[in-house]
Amino acid sequence: MTDYLTPLSGERLRAAGIPEPWSFGHADRVRFYELDALNHVNNTTYLRWFETLRVLWFVDRGITQYRPEDPTFVVRSLSCDYHAPLFLNDDYIVTARCESVGRTSFRKAYAVWSGGRLCTSGSAVIVRTDPAGARSLPLTDAERAVLVTRDGARDER
Amino acid sequence: MTDYLTPLSGERLRAAGIPEPWSFGHADRVRFYELDALNHVNNTTYLRWFETLRVLWFVDRGITQYRPEDPTFVVRSLSCDYHAPLFLNDDYIVTARCESVGRTSFRKAYAVWSGGRLCTSGSAVIVRTDPAGARSLPLTDAERAVLVTRDGARDER
Amino acid sequence: MTDYLTPLSGERLRAAGIPEPWSFGHADRVRFYELDALNHVNNTTYLRWFETLRVLWFVDRGITQYRPEDPTFVVRSLSCDYHAPLFLNDDYIVTARCESVGRTSFRKAYAVWSGGRLCTSGSAVIVRTDPAGARSLPLTDAERAVLVTRDGARDER
Amino acid sequence: MTDYLTPLSGERLRAAGIPEPWSFGHADRVRFYELDALNHVNNTTYLRWFETLRVLWFVDRGITQYRPEDPTFVVRSLSCDYHAPLFLNDDYIVTARCESVGRTSFRKAYAVWSGGRLCTSGSAVIVRTDPAGARSLPLTDAERAVLVTRDGARDER
Repeated sequence: MTDYLTPLSGERLRAAGIPEPWSFGHADRVRFYELDALNHVNNTTYLRWFETLRVLWFVDRGITQYRPEDPTFVVRSLSCDYHAPLFLNDDYIVTARCESVGRTSFRKAYAVWSGGRLCTSGSAVIVRTDPAGARSLPLTDAERAVLVTRDGARDER
Repeated sequence: MTDYLTPLSGERLRAAGIPEPWSFGHADRVRFYELDALNHVNNTTYLRWFETLRVLWFVDRGITQYRPEDPTFVVRSLSCDYHAPLFLNDDYIVTARCESVGRTSFRKAYAVWSGGRLCTSGSAVIVRTDPAGARSLPLTDAERAVLVTRDGARDER
Repeated sequence: MTDYLTPLSGERLRAAGIPEPWSFGHADRVRFYELDALNHVNNTTYLRWFETLRVLWFVDRGITQYRPEDPTFVVRSLSCDYHAPLFLNDDYIVTARCESVGRTSFRKAYAVWSGGRLCTSGSAVIVRTDPAGARSLPLTDAERAVLVTRDGARDER
Repeated sequence: MTDYLTPLSGERLRAAGIPEPWSFGHADRVRFYELDALNHVNNTTYLRWFETLRVLWFVDRGITQYRPEDPTFVVRSLSCDYHAPLFLNDDYIVTARCESVGRTSFRKAYAVWSGGRLCTSGSAVIVRTDPAGARSLPLTDAERAVLVTRDGARDER
């Protein structure tokens, strides 16, 4: 039985054929509304999957729970490379990890896997800001420590 | 452990507090992109959930696998009543069943449940048509039998 | 030249072949992302069009500008009937009006027109509530007057 | 009066404060469903705007009309940089142009402007393929000529 939507540890990901250093992900299945008129998963859908996992990852890493008193993070840039299409009812695993951390921002990598094959790779630059999202703020030492320890991020200050 | 996305039988639904005669559903979890600016699940999102379950139900009931040679069905009408809002990361179960079957169309009922509470009810009238979706065609005896036997639909011819 | 997105008065709607008593609408054009894998506009897309026009209508009627201090309205139910499909780049006009007004809620009607033909009809029941959306509140006399005068709504108290 | 959705030539774009060499775009307005729970336009929405304009651009440039007999193009990669947020009912102009053309693919640039300010920049690599999208095919001389002449693309073969 596929265990959908449960956060998958590094060990579980390895069992699914997903290599180091990926250590956070979950399984899901393509829905009809994620297809476009070309009958495959639309390009923008993958970025929504990254967003969904980003929310879970932020909570799992203890960085924000999206409460008013929690720190604010905004996406500064996104990119995505499409290697192979996905189709209706395909099972896939989406993975995320923090690759590197700077003074006020960090870089995340994303990937989508299906049948042991890398289908899509993505990245995002995420900035810690004031609540209005207008001004960059330094990451705290605690935030930085989580990114380095749990995700293996390079410290690039 | 919540078992997401797996089709749930009547027995599994009863265990989750969902009454007879619901006999088909699956569990899922609210994602960030399903919220709107009011911070709750958008009204139209529920209709996408009904659509997702409709695709799985059609395949489960053996009526269509969405191949070119399979019969065509189109949605003639939809309705939805909102009883209670859902929020980010809420777990829910969406259920579907065929209530009644006519000569060329049938009526489906949908419901969304969270924490044992009915949050949303919906219905759809679905018509069997020619491949172009232009002309109604009679349901076959085999299709009608499935709807009556598996879903407990009333035969209203 | 088609004049997209500009609120259309009754006179402009009549010129486009849309009958009385419709008195509010705007023109738009089908986008690729509004299609589904069947290559026509997805059922749920029409409900998003109704939502878009609802926001404009609320502002135009002076009922809410969606500021924190403005009254809260929630959609209690939605329904939609599909008469004819729409396709990529089709021009259409979506119209809205308040049909009837009760003590705490009112009923809106929606329609989508293309090439002078009615393609989709919809309706919504909208309730005035406290800011949390939990408890119904009576419509004010001023709100009721707008709905009766501008939209021709029946007063059903 | 803002002239929404009409393809805007270089001259019209210049009048709106959008510099050379942008020569294709259209104006639109932010809708409620394009916002997310943070109350601004969601990151993925911009990529849908790029997609909408891509469809119009392909037709305008005479490269494909999305008929079965037309050549197939697939998006190989996308990227987007977010400079300033957009909010409900904001007017914006989205622009697209082909920057460079290789043997089987070309690179497009996108931008979103509001109030004369650059809000978002994007890019896409688009590949000409066989109808299944599986194998790259060379661009024709006619296609290349359009990209160089109309868009000012660099020929990078």
